[in-house]
Amino acid sequence: MTPEPRVLEALTPQECMRLLQEHPAQVGRLAISGPPPMIFPVNYAIDGQDIVFRTAPGTKLDAALKDSVVAFEVDDVSAEWASGWSVLVRGGPGEVTDPDEIRRLSRLNLYPWAAGAKDHFVKISNAIISGRRFVER
Amino acid sequence: MTPEPRVLEALTPQECMRLLQEHPAQVGRLAISGPPPMIFPVNYAIDGQDIVFRTAPGTKLDAALKDSVVAFEVDDVSAEWASGWSVLVRGGPGEVTDPDEIRRLSRLNLYPWAAGAKDHFVKISNAIISGRRFVER
Repeated sequence: MTPEPRVLEALTPQECMRLLQEHPAQVGRLAISGPPPMIFPVNYAIDGQDIVFRTAPGTKLDAALKDSVVAFEVDDVSAEWASGWSVLVRGGPGEVTDPDEIRRLSRLNLYPWAAGAKDHFVKISNAIISGRRFVER
Repeated sequence: MTPEPRVLEALTPQECMRLLQEHPAQVGRLAISGPPPMIFPVNYAIDGQDIVFRTAPGTKLDAALKDSVVAFEVDDVSAEWASGWSVLVRGGPGEVTDPDEIRRLSRLNLYPWAAGAKDHFVKISNAIISGRRFVER
């Protein structure tokens, strides 16, 4: 059996932001170039136009965030791959250090990838956002 | 509200392979170092110890597979982030060119990321496989 090929349609940045905001599980994947390249699932939130997530100091994810540019992706694909979308966010990660901002972000339901006494809040700001929707033709 | 931190437990390579084989949606994410770094959702299959997926010529995914090492990740995270796992596969992608092998792989229900008249079958062979399970403590 050969499945039907899919057609990719570009999404506007506005559609991408809406999909990121409405995604129910709020899980995305963060890729680090390395070497070695790595991918981590992270629980994210949207703060204005920025992606926010938490890391624990001393973890591989924390170490990997020394990268100047990371890729972060959120998708939703149907089980039969008949439809779906993928949004890609690329930008430089930066730790949030302002105490007021940390206090504000602490009220978001953000789950860190691993346990850690003092979590870091990391933001991807000024990111390039692109996305694709795919449909059966 | 501050969610409970999670503890990460390493998975054995055998557990990782079992999780990759049993994952119902058979969707994973492939990361390309770039620059620029990219992440694509791909529909995969397991062939022996190798990861197999399809790409269409001329797509960004096809172009990106010139990388010597790629990261491929499959995960399952509960909506409340109370439990979950993530398996990471790292290796060099290679196009399958043997006609018999292409014929055999064509019988797998593999959906390409984008439409293309002549799909490529790509394998990640001799990969390093690692994984983590996270649990609330």
